[in-house]
Amino acid sequence: MKTALMIMDMQKDFIHPKGSLQVKGGKKIVLRVKRALEASRKAGLPVFHIKRIHRADGMDVEKFRYEMFKKMPYAVEKTEGSEIIEELRPKEGEIVLPKTRFSAFFHTNLDAILRRMGLARIVLVGIQSPNCIRATAVDALALDYDVVLLTDAIGSKTKKVHDSNMRDMRVMGMQVMTVDDFIKTLK
Amino acid sequence: MKTALMIMDMQKDFIHPKGSLQVKGGKKIVLRVKRALEASRKAGLPVFHIKRIHRADGMDVEKFRYEMFKKMPYAVEKTEGSEIIEELRPKEGEIVLPKTRFSAFFHTNLDAILRRMGLARIVLVGIQSPNCIRATAVDALALDYDVVLLTDAIGSKTKKVHDSNMRDMRVMGMQVMTVDDFIKTLK
Repeated sequence: MKTALMIMDMQKDFIHPKGSLQVKGGKKIVLRVKRALEASRKAGLPVFHIKRIHRADGMDVEKFRYEMFKKMPYAVEKTEGSEIIEELRPKEGEIVLPKTRFSAFFHTNLDAILRRMGLARIVLVGIQSPNCIRATAVDALALDYDVVLLTDAIGSKTKKVHDSNMRDMRVMGMQVMTVDDFIKTLK
Repeated sequence: MKTALMIMDMQKDFIHPKGSLQVKGGKKIVLRVKRALEASRKAGLPVFHIKRIHRADGMDVEKFRYEMFKKMPYAVEKTEGSEIIEELRPKEGEIVLPKTRFSAFFHTNLDAILRRMGLARIVLVGIQSPNCIRATAVDALALDYDVVLLTDAIGSKTKKVHDSNMRDMRVMGMQVMTVDDFIKTLK
């Protein structure tokens, strides 16, 4: 089955300690996401870099976050904070896809691109488990993709949040594995 | 703000002990869903009845559930099991909307109907918290609706699953309240 690696929201504003909206649990997965990325590149898997990108005026920010955004903007187009962190910088030819909501499928052409490329299985890493990872995974499942979650390369605010989300998604029919186990499947 | 009550998947196959896919935690919320329904009707709120409906051949069932469905079909169109339970039977003029995935927004015209009716706030009850309730709530949030969850009228397999999902959704910016508290807001 043709598989893609999909890296979610690993942007400076969310990962760096001085980022405007640092996500707890983001920093510590960087090296494992990098291992998954390098192994995927070596194995020839297509790589998707999903990033949140907002207008400076915030008109495309979720309504419930708009007041917060006005006080402390994050992931604003053309700012350094919106860039993907250096460790995971996209290579020429890899797909970089902007989004404005939790799900990478929401108001994007991600489904069309995946179909065109004949991809049937998505391996998800990045931040964070209850929001962007889960919303994207649930949409992928609804669209009949197979979904794999690399549990130790997915960031969560706390272990409790992480575990309950992995449990729910496993019950839905997604596959949960470690980066090491994923890399073994590539050999 | 114009508000709708939305009742999710309270169908015989999922609620009745002899239903083909009984959801644990479904039966015990029936009376509280009924109270929310009756109070909403009395207050003149539009009511949406969302139901899962599948073709008998299962071609519109999620891929990951297809094998299970073939062995034990559920929510098949025109069968008694697909009907909404007697206690919550829709009234003339209320909207009954079929769907094939977790989210009531997925490949349906729910968003178009809500907009046409000028509705901006959705009050969710029914089954079950990690799947259909959460997927619908997350899509509603992405579409900038305000979302209210009536926690004691939402079914979950276990208390643990229930609590972790309510926690995550509260953090996302949804409002979580009891049926009693909701009814007080209607007066």
